[in-house]
Amino acid sequence: MPVLLIVLDLGGTFVFAISGAMVAVRHRLDVFGVLVLAFAAGNAGGITRDLLIGAVPPAAIADWKYSGVSALAGLATFFWYPVTKKVANDVLWFDAVGLAFFAVAGAQKALAHGIDPTMAALLGMLTGIGGGMLRDVLVSGIPTVLRADLYALAALAGAAVVVSAHLLHLHPMVAAAAGGGVCFALRFMAIRHGWRLPTARPAPTVAPDAPHHPHHDEGN
Amino acid sequence: MPVLLIVLDLGGTFVFAISGAMVAVRHRLDVFGVLVLAFAAGNAGGITRDLLIGAVPPAAIADWKYSGVSALAGLATFFWYPVTKKVANDVLWFDAVGLAFFAVAGAQKALAHGIDPTMAALLGMLTGIGGGMLRDVLVSGIPTVLRADLYALAALAGAAVVVSAHLLHLHPMVAAAAGGGVCFALRFMAIRHGWRLPTARPAPTVAPDAPHHPHHDEGN
Amino acid sequence: MPVLLIVLDLGGTFVFAISGAMVAVRHRLDVFGVLVLAFAAGNAGGITRDLLIGAVPPAAIADWKYSGVSALAGLATFFWYPVTKKVANDVLWFDAVGLAFFAVAGAQKALAHGIDPTMAALLGMLTGIGGGMLRDVLVSGIPTVLRADLYALAALAGAAVVVSAHLLHLHPMVAAAAGGGVCFALRFMAIRHGWRLPTARPAPTVAPDAPHHPHHDEGN
Repeated sequence: MPVLLIVLDLGGTFVFAISGAMVAVRHRLDVFGVLVLAFAAGNAGGITRDLLIGAVPPAAIADWKYSGVSALAGLATFFWYPVTKKVANDVLWFDAVGLAFFAVAGAQKALAHGIDPTMAALLGMLTGIGGGMLRDVLVSGIPTVLRADLYALAALAGAAVVVSAHLLHLHPMVAAAAGGGVCFALRFMAIRHGWRLPTARPAPTVAPDAPHHPHHDEGN
Repeated sequence: MPVLLIVLDLGGTFVFAISGAMVAVRHRLDVFGVLVLAFAAGNAGGITRDLLIGAVPPAAIADWKYSGVSALAGLATFFWYPVTKKVANDVLWFDAVGLAFFAVAGAQKALAHGIDPTMAALLGMLTGIGGGMLRDVLVSGIPTVLRADLYALAALAGAAVVVSAHLLHLHPMVAAAAGGGVCFALRFMAIRHGWRLPTARPAPTVAPDAPHHPHHDEGN
Repeated sequence: MPVLLIVLDLGGTFVFAISGAMVAVRHRLDVFGVLVLAFAAGNAGGITRDLLIGAVPPAAIADWKYSGVSALAGLATFFWYPVTKKVANDVLWFDAVGLAFFAVAGAQKALAHGIDPTMAALLGMLTGIGGGMLRDVLVSGIPTVLRADLYALAALAGAAVVVSAHLLHLHPMVAAAAGGGVCFALRFMAIRHGWRLPTARPAPTVAPDAPHHPHHDEGN
């Protein structure tokens, strides 16, 4: 696997693992629960991608560096939560960086495995959103990705840029920088300036027998 | 892959994607959240089946038609929700059709991959219930399949008919029609006429420390 | 697959399937919902392990014995719930036995597939905690593994003992007994004597916009 891909993958794993660990600490899980959630958030996206493109055992299983990085992120968050919290300010920002890394790495690895361009872009998105979805499902929340503004779209846009650059035979490094930048920029505008996608107009009432959750506050 | 299988698979994907999108609109997700839930509901069952029988990359990843059909269903539901709602009347009916398509397609693909008959029937069931389960877990509900009457049983019955027809060397088309018919008929009787399976007699009280959900209303 | 591995795997499947069925009965699912949850709890860990090490189709899919054992456990629990309840006293104990069986079997199968020692220990842990996690997510709870004391750690310790014994060329039977014993002993001390891991000190308040669950009672 090329070095660029490993760096992106491990970088994404690290920041997502921190986001997972922060959610775990907030829910007052013990140190091992924190490590499990760090690993889940950091690696579920990449593992899903690898299973889907047939790259087994997945990198996160075959290579101890992924669990090492996740454990490091988990322990750092656990022992220096106030510091991590101050540095990270908000899980959202870490999540945004991880999203950019993973969207790019996911698209590039899918392309390298001969997946066609459209699906490679979607796999990039899936790689990006998988870890955060599992993190939220494990603590019984509706995944942020399904509520947060421009979340999946940012991942898809970043991955699409990577795929387009690949079709134009640009250098993978350039593709990664452009794709990651687009992804992060979209999340930045969404978090800072409230950019968002429309929801369906006819304010639907949740049917009383529908499977629903007690608090579905408007707009994430 | 034979044409019949593709038609069943894409048909099931379409109706499940609509059911996923309707749930997403009800929870007021944005347009991309609607697309993600449409894809998840429409393809999780088939992707799980393909991973389990070793057919990687799964059809839904290798072939853009699956995501295309899911996106179409998602957008149609999003933009014409009142129309979709009137046509669909209830997610339940769409779900029932999708269940029948997937139970049949799942069993036939498993047989085609040399899985033994009993497990092929169970894989048909799993294909049928996978998408709906992921849809419900993602919006934090207890999956309909675990509560709704005759749900998994209908899928299993349909898949078992397909497997039996296969063992009797009947034409796959006949097997598909019979299996799909049985599955839908069972769901029809359950939804319309309240057919249901018994729950355990000794009304158990939920232990206070048990992982539970605030509302577990009787009978789905 | 060696006999020892099959016995451990089927034993773990049986007790986890009972724990899944008991949770299903408590949530008043119908008989088929009980069977589905029994299968999910009994086999999710092993299926995940097999997918990750590239052993497809997974044993639980290729071999009808796994679903047979799960169905048996599910039906026994459904029809004799009061008896099962008296014998089992608490899902926790069954869960502990299943955890020990699966942690050992997971580590041994991973080693047999040439996974490196560190990752084999982690895969043993994952095999152990996978079924219980899916069981709890399906009924919308935060997985016990993320709250219960020494849960994932017990699985990891057991798996690590198995891996160490393997590196020391001890007999697999000895490794299994030692690893399973360590895992169960740790859970025993946690359940009976309240051994637990620390949670992060700075009592963090759950941010109002964070995805959370209404009841997050202290200490499972």
